[in-house]
Amino acid sequence: MPAQTAFLFDLDGTLIDSVYQHVLSWAEALTAEGINVPIWRIHRRIGMSGGLFSQALVRESGASLDAALQARLSQRHAVAFKTRISAIKPLPGAELLLRHLTACGIPWAIATSGLMETALPLIEKMGLPVDDMTVVTRDQVAFAKPNPDLFIEAARRLGRSPAECFVVGDSIWDLLAAQRADALGVGLLSGGYGEEELVRAGAFRIFAEPASLLNGLFELGIRS
Amino acid sequence: MPAQTAFLFDLDGTLIDSVYQHVLSWAEALTAEGINVPIWRIHRRIGMSGGLFSQALVRESGASLDAALQARLSQRHAVAFKTRISAIKPLPGAELLLRHLTACGIPWAIATSGLMETALPLIEKMGLPVDDMTVVTRDQVAFAKPNPDLFIEAARRLGRSPAECFVVGDSIWDLLAAQRADALGVGLLSGGYGEEELVRAGAFRIFAEPASLLNGLFELGIRS
Repeated sequence: MPAQTAFLFDLDGTLIDSVYQHVLSWAEALTAEGINVPIWRIHRRIGMSGGLFSQALVRESGASLDAALQARLSQRHAVAFKTRISAIKPLPGAELLLRHLTACGIPWAIATSGLMETALPLIEKMGLPVDDMTVVTRDQVAFAKPNPDLFIEAARRLGRSPAECFVVGDSIWDLLAAQRADALGVGLLSGGYGEEELVRAGAFRIFAEPASLLNGLFELGIRS
Repeated sequence: MPAQTAFLFDLDGTLIDSVYQHVLSWAEALTAEGINVPIWRIHRRIGMSGGLFSQALVRESGASLDAALQARLSQRHAVAFKTRISAIKPLPGAELLLRHLTACGIPWAIATSGLMETALPLIEKMGLPVDDMTVVTRDQVAFAKPNPDLFIEAARRLGRSPAECFVVGDSIWDLLAAQRADALGVGLLSGGYGEEELVRAGAFRIFAEPASLLNGLFELGIRS
């Protein structure tokens, strides 16, 4: 095992403060299709595979989901989310944390259930050189979270096994995927989950935001 | 003590699905004033007194709050929220639950940290006769939640002591205020808090939404 571990980051709610805009964009999309779901239930499903997400919400509403409805929902969400992108900011400390890891020679990657098309404009907000980054999106693997594929592929691109990595995420889907990938899970509160929800899903450490993870890297046993 | 207890309901996130719209309206207001706060921190403060809310968030951002800034924030939030009101719906079962309590002769009231001006358009969405309702808003008491004033006043108007009432709320501010008023707290997940956050704040029972509280009224020992 290398002396230094590596970090695999979720994007929305972990590095970028975009969860609540995703939530209301999905709420708009579902309402436009006549599907009634209370908004907190949308919130608790952000970060999981889009297909699973739509299935779960549509099923809860008592409606049924076919491929055409799923495509329309996805399209409506994308349109609604686009109007909100300009207002979205990185989470406190996101850029500093990533720069610090790079400066310490600790490899890191971003692994998101979103598509590259949606993820890139958000990643660019951090002001880091995108071309040097390892970014895995759902269009590059068979299954998104909570399947482990995204994190397994991100670790592979860093030349590590998932067991040599920390997965940092704000949702239980990140932490379930981390467990399935055999990586250690670190939870952030910045996606709006409660602490115990993340702990129960497998997080062995909890921080508020990227800034507090940066300050508490020693709690992960990082040599920096 | 009367044979039947009474119910004191919070409004936003408890009867009406309006928390996430409040959150993004506050985010807009704060950003417009150059105050940077991650959105989950706004979410966790919804439902508390507006004055406390602004103080807490502005302090966390490192800025300082004077009366003029507080007035501007409040005004900007009101303007941003108004554009979202038409999309807001009652939570599943809210109307049915209140109708059921009325039919059983169980008194109930609504007690909210919001102003009557903001609360009324939301209450009207449930389609119940507003003139017959007991509604206490922050303009009618000295201090909003987590002070107990709103629930104490609501109980008084129902002719009960707070100890004869259940307080139903989605936020820890409701549950702290319930404890201070000496009422039993019931938590709903529909405001987006995690279950343990509500339990730690004093909820002795947790339900998902008003609909599940209606189905589980027997768990509160209600004779209906």
